[in-house]
Amino acid sequence: MDVELIAVGTEILLGNIVNTNAAYLAEKCALLGLSLYYQSAVGDNEDRLENALQTALERSSVIILCGGLGPTKDDLTKEVAAKVMEMPLVTDTHTRERIASYFVNSHYKVITENNWKQAQVPKGATVLDNDNGTAPGLILKKNDKVVILLPGPPNELIPMFETAVAPYLREMTPEIICSTMVKICGKGESLVATEIGDMIETQTNPTIAPYAKMGEVHLRVTAKAANSQAANQLMAPIVEELKTRFGTYVYSTLEEETLEASIINLLRVKGLTLTTAESCTGGMLSARLTNVSGGSDVFKQGVVTYCNHSKEKMLGLQETLLLEHGAVSAETAEAMAKCGTLVMESDICVSITGIAGPTGGSKEKPIGLVYIACCYQNHCTVKRFNFKGNRSKVRENAVVNALILLRNCILNS
Amino acid sequence: MDVELIAVGTEILLGNIVNTNAAYLAEKCALLGLSLYYQSAVGDNEDRLENALQTALERSSVIILCGGLGPTKDDLTKEVAAKVMEMPLVTDTHTRERIASYFVNSHYKVITENNWKQAQVPKGATVLDNDNGTAPGLILKKNDKVVILLPGPPNELIPMFETAVAPYLREMTPEIICSTMVKICGKGESLVATEIGDMIETQTNPTIAPYAKMGEVHLRVTAKAANSQAANQLMAPIVEELKTRFGTYVYSTLEEETLEASIINLLRVKGLTLTTAESCTGGMLSARLTNVSGGSDVFKQGVVTYCNHSKEKMLGLQETLLLEHGAVSAETAEAMAKCGTLVMESDICVSITGIAGPTGGSKEKPIGLVYIACCYQNHCTVKRFNFKGNRSKVRENAVVNALILLRNCILNS
Repeated sequence: MDVELIAVGTEILLGNIVNTNAAYLAEKCALLGLSLYYQSAVGDNEDRLENALQTALERSSVIILCGGLGPTKDDLTKEVAAKVMEMPLVTDTHTRERIASYFVNSHYKVITENNWKQAQVPKGATVLDNDNGTAPGLILKKNDKVVILLPGPPNELIPMFETAVAPYLREMTPEIICSTMVKICGKGESLVATEIGDMIETQTNPTIAPYAKMGEVHLRVTAKAANSQAANQLMAPIVEELKTRFGTYVYSTLEEETLEASIINLLRVKGLTLTTAESCTGGMLSARLTNVSGGSDVFKQGVVTYCNHSKEKMLGLQETLLLEHGAVSAETAEAMAKCGTLVMESDICVSITGIAGPTGGSKEKPIGLVYIACCYQNHCTVKRFNFKGNRSKVRENAVVNALILLRNCILNS
Repeated sequence: MDVELIAVGTEILLGNIVNTNAAYLAEKCALLGLSLYYQSAVGDNEDRLENALQTALERSSVIILCGGLGPTKDDLTKEVAAKVMEMPLVTDTHTRERIASYFVNSHYKVITENNWKQAQVPKGATVLDNDNGTAPGLILKKNDKVVILLPGPPNELIPMFETAVAPYLREMTPEIICSTMVKICGKGESLVATEIGDMIETQTNPTIAPYAKMGEVHLRVTAKAANSQAANQLMAPIVEELKTRFGTYVYSTLEEETLEASIINLLRVKGLTLTTAESCTGGMLSARLTNVSGGSDVFKQGVVTYCNHSKEKMLGLQETLLLEHGAVSAETAEAMAKCGTLVMESDICVSITGIAGPTGGSKEKPIGLVYIACCYQNHCTVKRFNFKGNRSKVRENAVVNALILLRNCILNS
């Protein structure tokens, strides 16, 4: 079955936002075994949107439109879809109530008249509740064509796709596609690709597809089969082979398990507590560790010692050490980690200090220079990095490398 | 003049890469005063690509295609464009020499036969040298229609666009486009839209377009004129009117200034120092404040008191207070902020404590319940929120609302 994506929004045509929804939906459709031949983006313009939808309906079976479901006048997706599919808009009482309760619980207490526009739905459409916003999702079905409308904000679109749209699409496809993710950290994409070159060369079913993200490579093993048991049997030997080849670089084979979640689990298994001490990353490391719900039994606290004085006051660093070596130095990183374990009475402390830029660099200590240290039982490992890129890239790189160092430290504990 | 973008590549349709070229080119076209009504993506398939290009030529004057100029068999963009524009491929000696010299200077010393495919160009096309790769860019012009072919990798496409394509397009456009961003925080999108409904209703030039992001609404005022001075004159009264209507809700009229940057500036202007004390957000607030480079003169430090014990140890909270009211309570939020100013010797401390979920909720204290407090000169403001959505949304909402409370506290100081 073939699917087509249309992103709606003048902000996309003006380049104000990157259309990440398209990549997300494309990957999910591929995983569902659906063929996606066209993606497009149109602005908040009735004629052009109608045109795009008509063209899509002529060549594809399922059209997913995202965006343009907001409360304002320029949000037209639902109106155009209702017109093209000839399903007139009617008030949906359930959605009206959901919107009212959404506002009761939000900090915007005023429901303006335009909000009720979102309770209008095409007659006969399936309404998908939005747990993260007011606009409902909608499925319009007529004459073997399906039009699916999803809200534009990714934090609304993604949960709605996962809970309602993916199961709906899965039921429409005859063959089952199953996949397992082998997640690797601390090894570059080219190296990973080279080490499995022979497996990729000869693959038919299952297939292996690498996805790189900062500090990590995810290998998606995908099998087509009549049922999930058969698919799992096809995948098992491939997954085993990948685990053998990459050893402890594999941190998870669970789709949902993030690197930080695997670390929280490791800490729990080993009965260790953790403190973070950050300077240039300003709390990004602790923020990432607390992405994981219910981890306060092992991740106890973090300090963001952003100025020099706070490094002395909160962690007890010596002023002389900071004067002699500077805040960005192996010595300071080590002292931050060591003092972190002592002052905070924690088994492990991981610390980060560096120059994220764009200001503050020098010839001796250029932008991108970052020291990361991890201390366990008074023994410290310190690593020096020279990251490339802008402030945000340097900081994200520092965080993922701190996680990798921390993970190795726990594994060796 | 109207422009249309077509991205070519199966990797886009499979969701393996995010189409950032589209956002880049769209923004650049908007700034050049070109109207962009359609974007699309197609795979490396001859028929569908030909189809997409034909459709684009019927409705737009300039078509920019990116990707599919590589040396392999599945790279078809140039071949299809040459066919559609009826400009047969011929060998371009200059490009052949450039490719040869590129290989001499690169670490890949072997020129394979398929590389010479890249020296074939449509007869009569303008060749754009590629300083960062082998594939040349191409401009095909015929019967008032222009087709521009650019290489897919952003590090080849961007320099080529800046140096060759932007000047070419600028010569084709008589008018220029300027815009100013009016950035508002603490007011919902619907309410903002309602309050400027009359202005949007009657707008022609300049226009106002609202963009919502969490806790913020950005109003982009855009004017078309013969030159930038005339455009600025058109925009000035509109920007003034928006500033009057939204008063202190407007935090900036600078395109690049983020909410956190405006707060760091405010602190500096008022000569105040800041500490953050976070529980459920785990450092996300301090991470956001440290997005701003060089802010350590005002943002001194943050604590992430993730477990109860660390709230006592690091901030000096009373165990009895935590036992009586619980970690998620107005009393605890207030104590965290107050103790934050005292223990850390800081002028202001903003604190967050809440239940981000998906675990840890109860009937009395449901998931999404968050208390945010801000303390200045021993005076505390505490706010209670019931955020909707998943863990990440609850946490992001908490952070932006803490920033808004903090900003109001500084403004009233």
